[in-house]
This record gives sequence, C-alpha cells and structure tokens, in this order.
Amino acid sequence: MKFSFEQLFKFTKSIFIKIGCPEEEAETAAKVLLSADLRGVDSHGVARLSGYVRLWEANRINATPSIKIIHETPSTAVVDGDGGLGLVVAPFAMQVAIDKAKIAGTGWVSVKNSNHYGIAGQHAMMALEHDMIGISMTNASPLVSPTFSTERLLGTNPIAVAIPAKSQPPFVADFASTTAANGKLEILKRKSEEAPLGWIQDKNGNPTTSPDGVKDGGALLPLGGDREHGSHKGYALGAIVDIFSAVLSGANYGPWVPPFVAFLQPDPNPVGEGLGHFFGAMRIDAFRPADEFKSNMDIWINRFRKAETISGQEKVLIPGDPERELEAERRSIGIPLLKPVEEDLRALGEKFGVEF
Amino acid sequence: MKFSFEQLFKFTKSIFIKIGCPEEEAETAAKVLLSADLRGVDSHGVARLSGYVRLWEANRINATPSIKIIHETPSTAVVDGDGGLGLVVAPFAMQVAIDKAKIAGTGWVSVKNSNHYGIAGQHAMMALEHDMIGISMTNASPLVSPTFSTERLLGTNPIAVAIPAKSQPPFVADFASTTAANGKLEILKRKSEEAPLGWIQDKNGNPTTSPDGVKDGGALLPLGGDREHGSHKGYALGAIVDIFSAVLSGANYGPWVPPFVAFLQPDPNPVGEGLGHFFGAMRIDAFRPADEFKSNMDIWINRFRKAETISGQEKVLIPGDPERELEAERRSIGIPLLKPVEEDLRALGEKFGVEF
Repeated sequence: MKFSFEQLFKFTKSIFIKIGCPEEEAETAAKVLLSADLRGVDSHGVARLSGYVRLWEANRINATPSIKIIHETPSTAVVDGDGGLGLVVAPFAMQVAIDKAKIAGTGWVSVKNSNHYGIAGQHAMMALEHDMIGISMTNASPLVSPTFSTERLLGTNPIAVAIPAKSQPPFVADFASTTAANGKLEILKRKSEEAPLGWIQDKNGNPTTSPDGVKDGGALLPLGGDREHGSHKGYALGAIVDIFSAVLSGANYGPWVPPFVAFLQPDPNPVGEGLGHFFGAMRIDAFRPADEFKSNMDIWINRFRKAETISGQEKVLIPGDPERELEAERRSIGIPLLKPVEEDLRALGEKFGVEF
Repeated sequence: MKFSFEQLFKFTKSIFIKIGCPEEEAETAAKVLLSADLRGVDSHGVARLSGYVRLWEANRINATPSIKIIHETPSTAVVDGDGGLGLVVAPFAMQVAIDKAKIAGTGWVSVKNSNHYGIAGQHAMMALEHDMIGISMTNASPLVSPTFSTERLLGTNPIAVAIPAKSQPPFVADFASTTAANGKLEILKRKSEEAPLGWIQDKNGNPTTSPDGVKDGGALLPLGGDREHGSHKGYALGAIVDIFSAVLSGANYGPWVPPFVAFLQPDPNPVGEGLGHFFGAMRIDAFRPADEFKSNMDIWINRFRKAETISGQEKVLIPGDPERELEAERRSIGIPLLKPVEEDLRALGEKFGVEF
C-alpha cells in the first residue's frame, strides 16, 4: 500500500506538534524522518514514529529543548541538544558547522544530549547547496560486537559524506559501519529467510544465519564480518564514529548509549548525556575554486559510472545513485508502507486525534 | 635475520642523501619509512627503499622539492609537494594542519604533486603530542575494483586516525579500505598459500583464492569483499579517500594515480599532478577540556579491552595495540628482514657506496 509524501509529511508533523514540538521544529523533524522513507531506508523513517513517541512518553525526549552551543572556536563547536529529538538537534548542529565553514573554511560540531537523528545522509546533504562537502555521523544503541568479543559495545554507527559535482548529481555515501544494517534482518525475518554468513554472530560469538541471532543475545558484526575479512577495520570505523560523536562532546559512548526502544532502560550510571553526533562542513573553495573541483568530480563520476562491469552486472554505481532514483520514484508514485507500519500509524493517529 | 633500528636508519638516511635529499629531509624520510618496519607493516618499510630510488632514477621523484602552501584559509590549506618524496611532503603538510589547529581549532590539508608517503598512521600520530586528534589518508596506485566492476580504479587508499588517551596508550587506527592489503598477498605467495575468498577477484571479476590473482589482471576487493557483505561500503570509503586526497587538491585520482613501480609509466594524459594526501588535526580542547576527554578515552579503552571474549580468543584489541607491541619488541631485539629484502639493500648499498 502506497502513501503520498505529502500525506505522510502532514501526519508526521501533526504528531510531533501533538507531543509538544513547536511548529517549525515539528516540520523539520517530519522532513528529516521522511527523508529516510523517500531514500529507501524504510527502517529509519515513519516506521519509527511511534518509537519516538514512546520515548517522549517515557520522559526521555524533550519536545521543547533549548539547543545551544556550549563551547566553540573559529572552526569547532560543541552543541548541547537538551534531550531534544535528534531529528531537530542534528539540523541545528549541521547548520552551525556550515556557518563556521563560511568563515573559517571548515566547521566541525560534536553534539551531546541528543537522541536518534534519522538517516545520516540527510544532514550531510545540507552542505551541498553551499558548495561544501558535508559529513555526518552518530553513535547508536549497542548492537555490535568488536572483533573477538561476545559483548555488544557499539551501535551500527553510520558515516555519511556528501560531495557536490557539476553536471552530475552529488556523490552521497551513507553507510553503517557494520556488514548489514539491523533493518535488513527485519526484512529477512518477515520473509522467513536466512541471513548470509558474516552478518551476525550468536550469543557465544559463533557465526549464525538466523535472522533472530541478535534478538537471541547475539550481535551484528562490524564491516568485514570476521578478522580474516577485515572486521577489525569495521570495528575501528565504528569506534572512531563513537569517539568523535560522544567522547569529544560529553555524550554516552559504547555500551552506555541509551537504547532507542522505550522498554529498555538507559544505564543508571551513564558516562555522559544522551547520545552523540558529529558533523563536518568543508567549503570547497577553501581548497580550490569550486567550479574546478566540481568539473573534476564530473570526470571522477563519469569514469566510475562507465567502468567495465562483471558479466551479469548492469552497471557500476556511484554512492547515492540508488537512493536518488528511489526518491524520484517515491515522490511521484508514493511511499510503500508495510501493513504493520500502516496499522501502527493509524493507531497513533487515533490516540492523538490526528487523521491518518 | 634481524637488524637494529639504528643500523637501518643510518643506512636509509645515507641512501636518501646519496640521491640528493638535504640531510634534514633524508632524516625525516628515513624515520617515516622505518616507522613501517617498526610497526610491522613490512611491505611499506625498507623493503620499498629501492623502489623509491628507481622512481628517482626515472625522474619521477624530486629530491630537492620546494614544498609550499598554495592556498589557505584559517582552517585549511592546499600543499604542492613539488614532486618530492611523500615521506617528506606528508610530515610538512601534517605540520601545517597542526599549526592551523592551534589557532582555528582544527586544520585540514589536501596535498597534490606528491608520491607514496609510507604508512598512514605515522603522520596521524604527529598530532598526539599536541593533544590533538590526527587524521591521515592517501590515494595510491590503482589495484582495487569498485563493486560490480572488473577494472582497477582505486588504490588501497588507507585511513588513519590517532586519538590521545590519558593513562592508556593512544588509540591508533590505520587501515586500508580493502579487505586485505597487497602486502598480505605477497606473504601468501612466499608461503605458497591460497588467499581466503573475499580478498581478490580474477580478471573477469570472479572470486579467486590465487594469490597471483591481482598480478594476473584481477583486483583487490573493497572492504566487505562482495555486495552481500558490504563491499559497496569499502568502495565508498576508498572513493572518499581518493576525493579528499586528490580532487580537493588537484592531484591525480582514480585510475590516473601514477604507479609506484618505475617500470609502469604514468598516464600520458593525467587529470592532476602526482598523487594526493589528506590530513586533519583537531585540537581536543576546541571541543572540551583535554584532560576530561582523555580521562573518558581511558574509560572507553578499558571497557573495550576488558570485553568478554569469544571462546578461544585471548583478548579484545584496541586499534594500535598490535603495532605498539611490535614496535617495542623490534626496537629492543631488532627488525627482521626477509633474505630478498636484505640482498636488495646490500645491492643498493654497493651501488651508492654505502655500507649496509
């Protein structure tokens, strides 16, 4: 069943207003949340709306935060999200990075006391219209074991980098530092399919293909899967995201990151405040004339796009291609929602007196 | 056969002086090159010395470069390496990043017209003594195929991030954006062992376990190995390194990066100058007091170090642990060199009248 972007946007914005968000922030939050549905990251879009509401009901989200810069230099800032929606805190912080870059060449902002911020790529892409490179990362609820461990100490900690081109669409990489995102396991579960080896381990750290592996006490694996295939590199990437997002800002890190689901309690002895993000903006002409750079990005993109393919493969993709194509399609013919998600939204609407 | 650091350092420095490097630069180059041998990245150390000399003989390395900043803002710079040794250009550029960070909070330097710079981690670690986070990356000769392609369009493009702690040794991640580095294939070849699946593909893009796969027209695979295991993420990482290092600076990128081996000619129609690097330095106290940050890094490191292990695994490692332990060992009992490397150095010494 497909729904128009406009319908879902209006509904989502209304729900955020119902929980007390000021109108402008409700609009920002709805836009950020729905960018996930448009770009095909269905696990991070409206499917999570009722999850955010449950966190608010548990007094773990502040609908009227006073988001502010608590420390800064010409090219850096630390932002305190005051327990607000990450969907609102993140665009604020990314804007600070962009404003810093306008003057100092680059801007780098670490954020504490925030919540889950939707998809990483959406925030990085804010830089593009300013002829800047945008960078966005966040830590997240612990579901990932470092190489050799049975404990879940890291989130899927994504990294996004958005880079403008000239005639070509921008390069937009947005990926978890794990082999597969958690959302993919949910899809397999629904289809009653097994997961490929290298995605997850069971509670003893043994490879498993059960899509319930994580739920049953196992963990997602860092990109690489096992030591022989470079999982120590995925672990290092996830660790870097965690440290930049939370140790730099004063948020919770590692196993202390508060869980997204309201039925799990945050650690009673936190090491910081909320969860953390990290944003960067680099003005292209702080390095070389923007037009020259963007012409070279066109050459780069064209060369990779036209690369010879392995037999049976249609084409080599540029990061951001699949999401952009999906967004065009979904803006025109609508966003598909699974039945349980639709029912969940309908129930949410009834609860708050908002028509779905 | 083991050799003392001092002996190898003296020899290497003398060779660099013989090819015309000023004494101070010869010393820097020798120090950077040998940091690879100390830290166990044997493929990037003295084993490459004769390779650098052959590039110089082919007029592809300038022993007396005039390295300079050609563009800058408070937090950025572009450095022109003037065709010098990357081993000398990189420390110059990293120092520029550190100096920028002292004033603007962070410093970001993209470099063109350089050559191979040794191991990425060595440059990133320059930031540590200043209570800064150091970042270092470089592009390299094309040996890696993007997901779905048979063409070699990227180098192993490594990323290094060095982060200071308080009582704990620093966190130092330094890894190629491929499943396995090329040096590992050389080791397998010498032992006549097969490579694990997921490391390389043959010239048609099929998985292969032959350690000669790359030599025979195949390619190294991006971290992840194949699409199902996230190779598009390793490809994106390698691409980001390429773009930051070369499209931002005006160096060659993708398949145009000049080969390290002197018997392969650079592309007659280059898209830039030499190869490129990218460096970053972030002053910790541009975000929060350095002591507070470093105490939290200790907590982070201790928590991960004490994580429960999978049965049969001794401990969970912190990025940088194995290299640091190896460096302590090799500084005390010497650096092992393979017979062919030793013979190669001896021949080099005879050629230049330097005692090995």
